[in-house]
Amino acid sequence: MNNEGGETWSVFDVIGHLIHGEKTDWITRMEIILSEGGNKEFKTFDRFAQLEESKGKSLEQLLKEFLAARELNLAKLISFKLTENDFKKTGIHPKFGAVTLSQLIAAWTVHDLDHISQISRVMSKQYKDPSGPWIEYMKILRQ
Amino acid sequence: MNNEGGETWSVFDVIGHLIHGEKTDWITRMEIILSEGGNKEFKTFDRFAQLEESKGKSLEQLLKEFLAARELNLAKLISFKLTENDFKKTGIHPKFGAVTLSQLIAAWTVHDLDHISQISRVMSKQYKDPSGPWIEYMKILRQ
Repeated sequence: MNNEGGETWSVFDVIGHLIHGEKTDWITRMEIILSEGGNKEFKTFDRFAQLEESKGKSLEQLLKEFLAARELNLAKLISFKLTENDFKKTGIHPKFGAVTLSQLIAAWTVHDLDHISQISRVMSKQYKDPSGPWIEYMKILRQ
Repeated sequence: MNNEGGETWSVFDVIGHLIHGEKTDWITRMEIILSEGGNKEFKTFDRFAQLEESKGKSLEQLLKEFLAARELNLAKLISFKLTENDFKKTGIHPKFGAVTLSQLIAAWTVHDLDHISQISRVMSKQYKDPSGPWIEYMKILRQ
């Protein structure tokens, strides 16, 4: 088993999800917030797009794809030359309503950390039985 | 706050703990298991040694120290040229009693993943309030 059972995600699924986020979510939503006038509503993020988009690819390919997409987005983020005032600008989230640019950037960071934690958890479960008595000391194996 | 409250560890504390593990635990115990004859008992690992050893150092210094110690230990691991038979050899853990080399290596891996998960959790908590409504989607902020 390479996931946490049932419909849970493998590391491969998670990386595909992160790539889809780089391509359609975080920076795209920042651009909507920073645009002058117009519609400020975000599109709903597709949490299952990677199941199709990752088909036939290797984990190594996905990791390279994520790295390239993230580098491009960090370059875009820098190019925005954000000011204090920009951080207070808002967009309309399909579920939460008005959210600020500042909240979006914090959530982007936590989203990374959440999936790093998930990847660690999924990988560690593959070593649960092989670790023998040490599982008693490993908090991650009791999650 | 740079930890999870009370006596919990900051990222700085965790890296110090990982360094102490590289220097006194995993490879040291493997050497005891692989040694011919003699006392097979492991010393008790000091979970608080880093509180003294990390004093006055920067996080960057600790990260460099960890990297160097890990590289040295991976080189040692390769130099052991482990055989199928070696994986079944045992040492005496101060709490668990007899443990195999195979279990020790699996536990070393899970121990890394456990602390990567902890670091992600500690860091993400610094962004909890700034993330606003998104905390609802972040499993790591509910741990």
